[in-house]
Amino acid sequence: MQLQKGDISAFLHHAMDTMEKLEGNTFMKKTALIMAGGRGERFWPRSRRNLPKQFLSLTDDGKTMIQLTVERISPLVDIEDVYIATNRDYRSLVMEQLPGLPEKNILCEPVGRNTAPCIGLGAVHIAKKYEDAIMYVLPSDHLIKFNNMFLNVLRDAGEVAENGENLVTIGITPDYPETGYGYIKFHPDKTEGRAYAVERFVEKPSIEVAKEYIATEEYLWNSGMFTWKVSTILKNIQMHLPDTYERLMKIAEAVGTAEEEAVLEKEFRAMQPQSVDYGIMEKAKNIYILPGTFGWDDVGSWLAVERIRRSNESGNVVSGNIITINTHNCIIQGERKLIATVGLDDMIIVDTEDATLICAKDSAGDIKKVLENLKICNRDEYI
Amino acid sequence: MQLQKGDISAFLHHAMDTMEKLEGNTFMKKTALIMAGGRGERFWPRSRRNLPKQFLSLTDDGKTMIQLTVERISPLVDIEDVYIATNRDYRSLVMEQLPGLPEKNILCEPVGRNTAPCIGLGAVHIAKKYEDAIMYVLPSDHLIKFNNMFLNVLRDAGEVAENGENLVTIGITPDYPETGYGYIKFHPDKTEGRAYAVERFVEKPSIEVAKEYIATEEYLWNSGMFTWKVSTILKNIQMHLPDTYERLMKIAEAVGTAEEEAVLEKEFRAMQPQSVDYGIMEKAKNIYILPGTFGWDDVGSWLAVERIRRSNESGNVVSGNIITINTHNCIIQGERKLIATVGLDDMIIVDTEDATLICAKDSAGDIKKVLENLKICNRDEYI
Repeated sequence: MQLQKGDISAFLHHAMDTMEKLEGNTFMKKTALIMAGGRGERFWPRSRRNLPKQFLSLTDDGKTMIQLTVERISPLVDIEDVYIATNRDYRSLVMEQLPGLPEKNILCEPVGRNTAPCIGLGAVHIAKKYEDAIMYVLPSDHLIKFNNMFLNVLRDAGEVAENGENLVTIGITPDYPETGYGYIKFHPDKTEGRAYAVERFVEKPSIEVAKEYIATEEYLWNSGMFTWKVSTILKNIQMHLPDTYERLMKIAEAVGTAEEEAVLEKEFRAMQPQSVDYGIMEKAKNIYILPGTFGWDDVGSWLAVERIRRSNESGNVVSGNIITINTHNCIIQGERKLIATVGLDDMIIVDTEDATLICAKDSAGDIKKVLENLKICNRDEYI
Repeated sequence: MQLQKGDISAFLHHAMDTMEKLEGNTFMKKTALIMAGGRGERFWPRSRRNLPKQFLSLTDDGKTMIQLTVERISPLVDIEDVYIATNRDYRSLVMEQLPGLPEKNILCEPVGRNTAPCIGLGAVHIAKKYEDAIMYVLPSDHLIKFNNMFLNVLRDAGEVAENGENLVTIGITPDYPETGYGYIKFHPDKTEGRAYAVERFVEKPSIEVAKEYIATEEYLWNSGMFTWKVSTILKNIQMHLPDTYERLMKIAEAVGTAEEEAVLEKEFRAMQPQSVDYGIMEKAKNIYILPGTFGWDDVGSWLAVERIRRSNESGNVVSGNIITINTHNCIIQGERKLIATVGLDDMIIVDTEDATLICAKDSAGDIKKVLENLKICNRDEYI
C-alpha cells in the first residue's frame, strides 16, 4: 500500500482529534449552529409550509437533510454541542428527527430576522456554555458528497478561526457560471493557513458577469457556511450591529431564567432583519475563505434529485409504486399509489397524499406559480 | 320559416310514430338488444375489469355510455323492449345505471361467445315476447352526436328490415382511412329503400388499402349496428349456425322455467364462439347497408375525450381539482386530489383513487402495456 498525501493529512487530523480527546482542551471546543428555519417552496408538493426541505428525505438512504447535516459533522462536533436554530412551528419536527439532541439546544426564533440575529442567538447560547469555542455555522438543507474532505475543510477553518480573530467562510470552487448564487472574491496571494483573504462579497451575477468571475479564478461560490470563535463573532456583532448586540446581551442574561421566553420574544422581535453577509462580513476585517471541493449541492430544486440519487438504466430516478413504459430521464417520486407513465421524457412527477405535480424539467422554475395560484385562491391546505 | 327536406322527413317520421301509437300495431314493434359485455382496457385506470367503458361517464353531461345508449333510442324503443346482453359481473351495474329497465331484460351470458350467440340469445327472448318484431342490435359504448339523424337511420333500417327478410347493417361514412375498423363494400346501384346491397365485409385494412377503399366511395366503416326482424335473424342462425340454433331453441324452451339458469349455462357454454359478421353476414343473402353520418364515435381511447368534451382556451380538457401552468392541449381527468401541471403539452393525465396514468398523447396505444405489466406481476387489484 502506498500512502497518498490525502492519507497522511487524514492520519494527522485523526491523530489531532485523538490527542484532543485524550488530553482535554488542547484545542478549542468545536460547536455548531445549524440553521433550519427555511420555508422552501421548490420541493412542492413534497415540501409544505409545515414540512420544509430540511425535514425531507431526498437521498437514497432515507435520512432527512437535517439528519444528514448533523451526522456529517459528528466526528468533529459532539451532539451536545450542536445547536439548531429554527422557528416554533418546526420544534417538534427537530425533536422527532434528532432524538439525540438536547432539547435546550433547539433555539426557536420568535420571528425570522435573517441570518445575523439568528447567528447572534446561537453565539449567545454557546457563550453561556463555554468560555470560548469554535462555532461552525451550517445550513441544514445542503448535501455533501465527500464527507471526509468536508471535515478536513472544517478542521482547517477551525485552525484559521482559532488563530487570532478571523472570520472564515467556506467557498465552493465553481463548476460553471451559476447565476443563482452569490460569489466571493479572494486574494490568491494573501493566505492564512490554507485560507485566502477575502476581498469582497458580490450578489448573484448576470451570466456574462458570472462567466468573467469564473475566468479570473479569483471567485468562489458563497455557500453560507462560516467558522469563527464565539468571541470573535460577538465582538463583530457589537461593532457592526450594536443594537442587535445589546438585545442579544439582554437575551443572554435571561437564558435559564423564568423570563427567558418573554425576553427572547421582545428583544429578538425588535432586532433589525440583517443577513450576516451584508451586516457583518462585508464590513469586517480578517475575513478568510477556504475553497471547498467536497461535492457540495444546495439541492435547489427537484432537478437536483437527479444528481443525488441513482437513476436506472432508462435514466429515470424513481421511488414508490411506479410502472414506466418507454419513459426516459424522468424524476418520479411516488408513495403508495400506483403511477404509470407511458412515452414520457424529461418530466418531474411527484405524488403525495393530497396533491400531484407533473412538470416538464425545463419548467421546474415555474413550480412557484402553482404556489402563487394556491395562495391567491386561499387554498392553504395545499401550501 | 322555410321547410327543409330534413324537416319534412322528420315530420313524416313523427307522424308515422304517432299513427303507430294511436292505431296499434300498424307497424312492427321495435325492440333493441344492447351489447354490454365488453371489458375494454383502453380507458385504464378509469376503466377496470369490474368497471368497463360502457359503465363510465366520458361526456360532459355525467351520463354513462350505456345510459346514453338507452336514452338515445327511447323515442323509438320503449324501455320494456330494451334488452341488455352482458355478463354476470356487470348485472348489478346495469341495474344501478338503468333503474327503469325490467330486471328480466338483463340477459347474462354465462361466458363470452362473441356476437352471434349473444344476438341469438337476445332474439330468443324477444321471440318469446312478440310473435315477431324489429330488433336493433347496438353496442353500448359508442357515442352519437346527431341523435335525430341517428333515429331516422334506425327508422329507415327498420323499414328495409320489415320488407322481406333483409339483414340491415349501419355503415359509417368514413372521414379518413382508419385502419382500426372493418369496412363493408356496397353496390351503389343496387338499393332497397334507402339502403344499398352489401357486396362483402372486409377486415381491418392496411393504410394503403384503407386509402383505396376511401377513394372508391364504395366502402363504409362497419359500426357493429344491425337491424332485422327477430324471425329473419333466427332463420339465418338456423341456416348458417345450426348447432347454435339448436342450443338456442333449448334455451328458449327453458325461459321462465326453473331450469332456465341451468340450461342457459349448459347450452350457451357449449356454443362455438362466432362473430355475427363472419358467422352470418358474410354468408347470408339480402344484406343491406344504410350509410350513417350522424356524428358517430366509437370512443376508442382517451384521445377521443378531446373530440367529445369541451376544451378550454388553452386546448385542455380538464375535470377535477386541477391547476395548469403553461399547459396546452392536454387531457386531464382528476378526482378530489389536486393535480398541478407545469409546462406540459399533448399529455393524457388520469388520476383515480389508487392509480395515476401519465401518458404522452402519441403513446396512447401503449397504455395496454401497463396492463400487461400488471398482469405479469399479478397485481390484479389495479386491472
